[in-house]
Amino acid sequence: MSLDAILSRIDDQMDDAVERLLELLRIPSISTDPAFKPDVDRAADWMVEALKSLGAEASKRPTTGHPMVVGHLGEGKPHLLFYGHYDVQPVDPLALWHKDPFDASIEETSKGKVIRARGAADDKGQLMTFVEACRAIIAEHGKLPCKITFFFEGEEESGSPSLVPYLEEFGAELKADLALICDTGLYDRDTPAITTQLRGLLGLEVTVTAPEMDLHSGMYGGIAMNPIRVLSKALGALHDDTGRITLEGFYDDVPELPDTVRAQWQNLAFDHARFLGDVGLSIPAGEQDRTPLEMIWSRPTAEVNGIWGGYIGDGFKTVLPSKASAKVSFRLVGQQDPEKILAAFKKHMLTFLPDDCKIDYPHEKGSGASVMRLDNPAFEKARKAISAEWPRPAVFAGCGGSIPIAGHFQDLLGMDVVLAGWGNDDDLIHSPNEKYDLRSFHLGTRSWARVIMALAE
Amino acid sequence: MSLDAILSRIDDQMDDAVERLLELLRIPSISTDPAFKPDVDRAADWMVEALKSLGAEASKRPTTGHPMVVGHLGEGKPHLLFYGHYDVQPVDPLALWHKDPFDASIEETSKGKVIRARGAADDKGQLMTFVEACRAIIAEHGKLPCKITFFFEGEEESGSPSLVPYLEEFGAELKADLALICDTGLYDRDTPAITTQLRGLLGLEVTVTAPEMDLHSGMYGGIAMNPIRVLSKALGALHDDTGRITLEGFYDDVPELPDTVRAQWQNLAFDHARFLGDVGLSIPAGEQDRTPLEMIWSRPTAEVNGIWGGYIGDGFKTVLPSKASAKVSFRLVGQQDPEKILAAFKKHMLTFLPDDCKIDYPHEKGSGASVMRLDNPAFEKARKAISAEWPRPAVFAGCGGSIPIAGHFQDLLGMDVVLAGWGNDDDLIHSPNEKYDLRSFHLGTRSWARVIMALAE
Repeated sequence: MSLDAILSRIDDQMDDAVERLLELLRIPSISTDPAFKPDVDRAADWMVEALKSLGAEASKRPTTGHPMVVGHLGEGKPHLLFYGHYDVQPVDPLALWHKDPFDASIEETSKGKVIRARGAADDKGQLMTFVEACRAIIAEHGKLPCKITFFFEGEEESGSPSLVPYLEEFGAELKADLALICDTGLYDRDTPAITTQLRGLLGLEVTVTAPEMDLHSGMYGGIAMNPIRVLSKALGALHDDTGRITLEGFYDDVPELPDTVRAQWQNLAFDHARFLGDVGLSIPAGEQDRTPLEMIWSRPTAEVNGIWGGYIGDGFKTVLPSKASAKVSFRLVGQQDPEKILAAFKKHMLTFLPDDCKIDYPHEKGSGASVMRLDNPAFEKARKAISAEWPRPAVFAGCGGSIPIAGHFQDLLGMDVVLAGWGNDDDLIHSPNEKYDLRSFHLGTRSWARVIMALAE
Repeated sequence: MSLDAILSRIDDQMDDAVERLLELLRIPSISTDPAFKPDVDRAADWMVEALKSLGAEASKRPTTGHPMVVGHLGEGKPHLLFYGHYDVQPVDPLALWHKDPFDASIEETSKGKVIRARGAADDKGQLMTFVEACRAIIAEHGKLPCKITFFFEGEEESGSPSLVPYLEEFGAELKADLALICDTGLYDRDTPAITTQLRGLLGLEVTVTAPEMDLHSGMYGGIAMNPIRVLSKALGALHDDTGRITLEGFYDDVPELPDTVRAQWQNLAFDHARFLGDVGLSIPAGEQDRTPLEMIWSRPTAEVNGIWGGYIGDGFKTVLPSKASAKVSFRLVGQQDPEKILAAFKKHMLTFLPDDCKIDYPHEKGSGASVMRLDNPAFEKARKAISAEWPRPAVFAGCGGSIPIAGHFQDLLGMDVVLAGWGNDDDLIHSPNEKYDLRSFHLGTRSWARVIMALAE
């Protein structure tokens, strides 16, 4: 099989591939919002048809939530498992989008052409680079060089509630020699990355109840405890003045970086002033005795992702509210145990809770961090293959995000996982005006073709 | 004029009076929400017709916001000015109402019949006790015993933006010998009160902006400052561990209670355990070295009335938000100056604000506290008249709420102000399921008839 011919075919078929992606992006598959359930299902059907169009045997697999899509194609070693997710984040605040988030289209920007739509970068554009790479290989050679199993999830943006049960029941069908995941980004515009360190995630919702009902702050203000006062005091104390997280034992299972990794990261010369400047900030907000790259890749975090309580409409309402709530998440590293951190958080909250107030945790979920075993030669093969496509060689990098599926593939199915992706820092994933560079889609498709051919050699 | 005949007539006409009140309550005159502007206007028209039905010369007076209603009726000394407000609070959270808040009706409860609707107690039911008292006097005697000017506001629940400009321009028409305001409550179920101490109010909205746009907390968490962290730390530090407010100079202009007032309040034997127990609490949350009655009547407070930021919908969204906001109010006493407190609050917020974050105050308004001059004999005349109607004699009391109009009548129009009202602590004003006891409406109407006749003697 000629790699050059495959790459040329990718170049020639780019317009059609983009059209297919735009079609997928026009399906508003928001998994967290029950109102969009039919759309998520429609996106699953679309994925099944996309795999069938490659010649794969593919179908939706029901779960208690949104369906999985599984497909098999090709024969021979190594057996590769490819994972992506076809669901997307909610779009609010909608007013900040400069267009309908699901009216996907190509836009000219000062940095080149982009595909603008919710899910363009996270993760529909990325997963389609892999599908389109397979399409080009088959178009050129009639078949894949090895067996590939496709596994597409529809609940990644809502915490993957069905994933572990599914892997536990049907994992045998998915077990392969190596897993590939396309849900990460480039190191910078010209430097691709294979992500070998992922932070874990503990997410929870907390509600403090003080009076049983909303009260008039004139009548009760000063004598009745305000739940916003309790919640803000407790959440405001999650970080000390040096940016360190104050939960008891929080750093117990956080390893120091190995010297080799530290040295490699120093060589990356991360430009934190530009990274923060892009979003209007300038001061690294994490632990003041850590480097900015450690803050986003290897150190744990605590963030309040949402807070609400009392009157939040127009005008004033001098209410003393009954309840105040927050959504809080922790990015975890090393051996930090989500259960242990959750217990420490609850203990922290209790120290701020007056005896006559109540506290509830209506939702909580967690997964630990992942570190890849780089001694599997597949990592170096993939790195070399990707390096050939981009201006600069690919690096092994950390990642601030959490992709629990990587840990599940490791722990539940015993597979090593190569995480590679083509997103840029300015893709605005989870934000208004999400986009994916056309260049990312094009070079990403070529990169996967190179990786598949290299691994099958 | 025979007082007894007037009181009998009030008893006989109670059913009709209630029907008129229900009609007024069915108009959803929510002044803070622009969507209800036509309804506020309709309520103003209703008030004009109600005054005309007494024989008054009455009309709407336009302002830049909602109209004032002014009417004149009767002749002779003393000239009394009566104030009430015909606008009401928003109704959210609507789901907690057991019925449509504007489908006003009479309900039987374990404590007797109540009028259930938004505005029943605050302030439509209260202001109608005065109107119905006048109606009964006129029905019985053909005229009022003195001149009464009616002044109804439609913006009280949205901070009275037009009030001071209106008083400054048209105050001469309203200037009387004494002002009467019906927007306060009973001391307890059987003990009426004339409120002689009112707290002032400083209300403001604050928004902290950290990154310029919402970010992914996986990518930016740990390095980019989260505005919720800044806001919660700053608001959580508004009170120290003893419940004392930490703003610089906050207590400078707060007077100690005069010994006579302290002694009188001690005699009231305020049952704070029951007061708090009614709303599911038990621990007084104010300054720990103050009595519970001081906390609600004579000490200043700081309350966060609303807080919001980040993702607050169903499910999780691991966003690192751009903005976080809060509505904050301070109840002021003594000579506390709203401008000075606002400056101290802004200084407090700045000490928590990282140099690369921004802070805005989109809304702010304030009014100082009021203390009545009890040497005007009208106060004792009114107290004696009201005492004759209720099981226990009326007391001169403090009030935690803020009724800026009382201060404006004192300062801008040079009038003393008698604040009397018939609400109960469990009326749920500003909360779901607001009600006004039928007994309050009935005895309140009788009380005003007694007061008017006593003042005109």
